[in-house]
Amino acid sequence: MAERSQPRLVGRPGNESRVRAEASPDTITSKDNKWLKVFRAALQGTGPRKGEPLGVEGPKLIEEGVRSGLEVEALLVGDAGEQALERILHAAGETESGITRSHILRTTDKLFSGVAGTEAPQGVAALFRQRIWEFDDVLRGAATREEASTGCAPLVIVMAGIQDPGNVGTVLRSAEAFGATGAIATKGTADPWSPKAIRASAGSALRLPVLRGMAIPMVLARLRMVRLKIYAASAKAYPDSTSPQTSNSELREPSAIFIGSEGAGLPVEVERAADARISIPISDIVESLNAGVAASVILYEAARQRKLA
Amino acid sequence: MAERSQPRLVGRPGNESRVRAEASPDTITSKDNKWLKVFRAALQGTGPRKGEPLGVEGPKLIEEGVRSGLEVEALLVGDAGEQALERILHAAGETESGITRSHILRTTDKLFSGVAGTEAPQGVAALFRQRIWEFDDVLRGAATREEASTGCAPLVIVMAGIQDPGNVGTVLRSAEAFGATGAIATKGTADPWSPKAIRASAGSALRLPVLRGMAIPMVLARLRMVRLKIYAASAKAYPDSTSPQTSNSELREPSAIFIGSEGAGLPVEVERAADARISIPISDIVESLNAGVAASVILYEAARQRKLA
Repeated sequence: MAERSQPRLVGRPGNESRVRAEASPDTITSKDNKWLKVFRAALQGTGPRKGEPLGVEGPKLIEEGVRSGLEVEALLVGDAGEQALERILHAAGETESGITRSHILRTTDKLFSGVAGTEAPQGVAALFRQRIWEFDDVLRGAATREEASTGCAPLVIVMAGIQDPGNVGTVLRSAEAFGATGAIATKGTADPWSPKAIRASAGSALRLPVLRGMAIPMVLARLRMVRLKIYAASAKAYPDSTSPQTSNSELREPSAIFIGSEGAGLPVEVERAADARISIPISDIVESLNAGVAASVILYEAARQRKLA
Repeated sequence: MAERSQPRLVGRPGNESRVRAEASPDTITSKDNKWLKVFRAALQGTGPRKGEPLGVEGPKLIEEGVRSGLEVEALLVGDAGEQALERILHAAGETESGITRSHILRTTDKLFSGVAGTEAPQGVAALFRQRIWEFDDVLRGAATREEASTGCAPLVIVMAGIQDPGNVGTVLRSAEAFGATGAIATKGTADPWSPKAIRASAGSALRLPVLRGMAIPMVLARLRMVRLKIYAASAKAYPDSTSPQTSNSELREPSAIFIGSEGAGLPVEVERAADARISIPISDIVESLNAGVAASVILYEAARQRKLA
């Protein structure tokens, strides 16, 4: 994937100094401004290409990103966003990287609305530099980067063909909540770093180790190499009643759980390659669970089993 | 709530005879047509008032409604919806009430798009007559209307302040999947019969006994009268570590589970009145689960406990 060329913030004064909210560089008043175009692409798109920044809107989410140590490439503030900016700068003040004066761009509320991806924009948006996660990170979890290993067996959720970014975000949120070490989104799955997925994840997408756009055969090969047990799960009830049900599964072991879409289920190659199937017992009258719910219930079950252990 | 006056389908021939897809009454070509207005209100609104019909779009969902025995007040078919109509009439042919010729209204795709509530309308929409659920239905479940009692203890999910209709729909879908007997949406909760909630429920909103817009004190009083154990659950982790966790709760008993919104949690009056709290153990780094997920995990846990019983 080619990296789109981006405007650079250069030649501004005070590039290295921390700033407070009242610092006010020139306001962007032209809708043809190059930075506005970058923000629009990031905030209204379906996810960043390799090297492109992640677009995040709203004080709460930006704060989550800043606190998690993500590097701010630029911060766009509309008139309505001044108060939110205070809060973000406060959060940034507690991190190593901080936010410098040159990162802050101001614009009018009208122009801000034009680049925002939400219906009721809150006047502040950020571009975060992509974090580079390796396959090992997905097995180890985020914490091990700075802290000692938690000693937990790897628990990886693999989204194979979940197309709704809201569901992808929900899966990431639950994955982090229930102690998964990482997530993988295969090709054909909505981008975990798309604005909608980041929003639905309530910030987990900015923290949890995640790999994007991997081909399924590659995912299977890498998981096999590190001897993870591969589970094929589905939002649908399996007709095969001999499938192990969630509560009989052994999710204490190092595990990777593949979850497919509600409609299509899992690709055949996953069904074939899996060491075991996992199904959530549901009423006959209901065809399937929401894909985000199905993944969450299995992750809850894994957490339950691991705590009982 | 006043019932809005509605146009009536009268004086058309063949009112009593089942029809096949080729039956073609006059096509609606004026956007001021009274029926189109009723459809627009139902499909783009936030839920029907008392007595108003439920608006449902798309062949799959309409089929679910028809199969569940809901009475069709009118069916609107755009040019693109002819094939879908076939499928719906086939489903209706297997039900008692069926769909008569006079219920079918045809219009152009352009006018159809104007009344639809989805971005990619599938050319067919229905108005269903409201089903009247009593409090007892919510305790007994839908099946007991026609079938023998399943003998299951009541399991009621009470949504208190969940504002996102997508989450409300997700809760209903999981509730039906995990054998809840019914659901209650308190005042201030998104309408379970709003088009968005019906869609997110994948049809469960059309089948599961549900009460809408009840005041919380009334809900608590009625639940007490029938001696249900009242659980206060939340999408947030309770800081109080003495709260019983999901896996230690006793959800085999007749239970009502209150679930609040992600942001606000449960109203204080519910926290005070509850017999017990229930919390889902999650990682410290995550503030809360998605409200739909939290309800689903607790309902899963109830199903798990009830099957082990």
